[in-house]
Amino acid sequence: MIVGIGVDVVDLPRFERSLVRAPRLRDRLFTRGESERADGTPRSPASLAVRFAAKEAVAKALGAPAGLEWHDCEIETLDDGRPVLHVRGSVLEAARTHGITRWHVSMSHDGSVGIATVIAESDS
Amino acid sequence: MIVGIGVDVVDLPRFERSLVRAPRLRDRLFTRGESERADGTPRSPASLAVRFAAKEAVAKALGAPAGLEWHDCEIETLDDGRPVLHVRGSVLEAARTHGITRWHVSMSHDGSVGIATVIAESDS
Amino acid sequence: MIVGIGVDVVDLPRFERSLVRAPRLRDRLFTRGESERADGTPRSPASLAVRFAAKEAVAKALGAPAGLEWHDCEIETLDDGRPVLHVRGSVLEAARTHGITRWHVSMSHDGSVGIATVIAESDS
Repeated sequence: MIVGIGVDVVDLPRFERSLVRAPRLRDRLFTRGESERADGTPRSPASLAVRFAAKEAVAKALGAPAGLEWHDCEIETLDDGRPVLHVRGSVLEAARTHGITRWHVSMSHDGSVGIATVIAESDS
Repeated sequence: MIVGIGVDVVDLPRFERSLVRAPRLRDRLFTRGESERADGTPRSPASLAVRFAAKEAVAKALGAPAGLEWHDCEIETLDDGRPVLHVRGSVLEAARTHGITRWHVSMSHDGSVGIATVIAESDS
Repeated sequence: MIVGIGVDVVDLPRFERSLVRAPRLRDRLFTRGESERADGTPRSPASLAVRFAAKEAVAKALGAPAGLEWHDCEIETLDDGRPVLHVRGSVLEAARTHGITRWHVSMSHDGSVGIATVIAESDS
């Protein structure tokens, strides 16, 4: 059963300007595993933007409660490029309230647009 | 079980021009509860655009049958900002034909792009 | 149960330039039934772009394995305009690996943006 869905669109130039204007924003939004690739090189602004969109989409799927921490929702990128969503702390707690046991996430960007879609499922 | 899904993207400047060019379009597309916020102030063109996208997405999830009325699909915005989909009349009738018992909706806009995603579920 | 989801966004002017620059791309990506309408007229670049996005979204829902053939995922457009996804060969094989028995697809374009969303379901 689907508990909630979330979609988020990000204007890439606007997001990149935010990262430049507020240098600490990157660390506030993203974990080390998100902001760097496995080889230690920094992830591109467009790639960060869709991860931001995914976190926003997760919040929407949860009903956007107060108190969610950005780092408590992490998008791991597997070796083959697939994104996997991990939740902990504040986000895990909200997910448990709704009986959510599975998360599905997909992200995409092209031109100046980035999007992410999330579906939260429960077993019952 | 998922009965149908719908996604819709709206070019915000184009949608806003339509609202300006055809002043009656707003009332034709949106209920009073959609076009005004709870405090009576008018909803922004971008906010209306994603509600229009949500209605289009609902029609797609239903297989885009003829005879759907815009006002028979209403997006209520709860106090905490969460959108909830209500269907009645022509849209409820089409939903019943497909055994749809639950609707999920999410909307987003940034820059010049607005999007909405809808999932229609049945119990069996 | 949802096995996987996929979303894809396409910058329409960029996609159209690719079709012009690489004339054989159209036939490599699309079947005859996709690149032409039922009356034999060519499908518009925007309409092709969202079909390309749908194929990309299918690949993402499958975990983007190697070896998928573009023609093994076909978007049929019913007389009433509804899109239906057909999978065969390489895509059907990957779908079977995941126990996928049903596909849902929706596509949309406006302005310079095209998007597609796909959900893959299994019976168990």
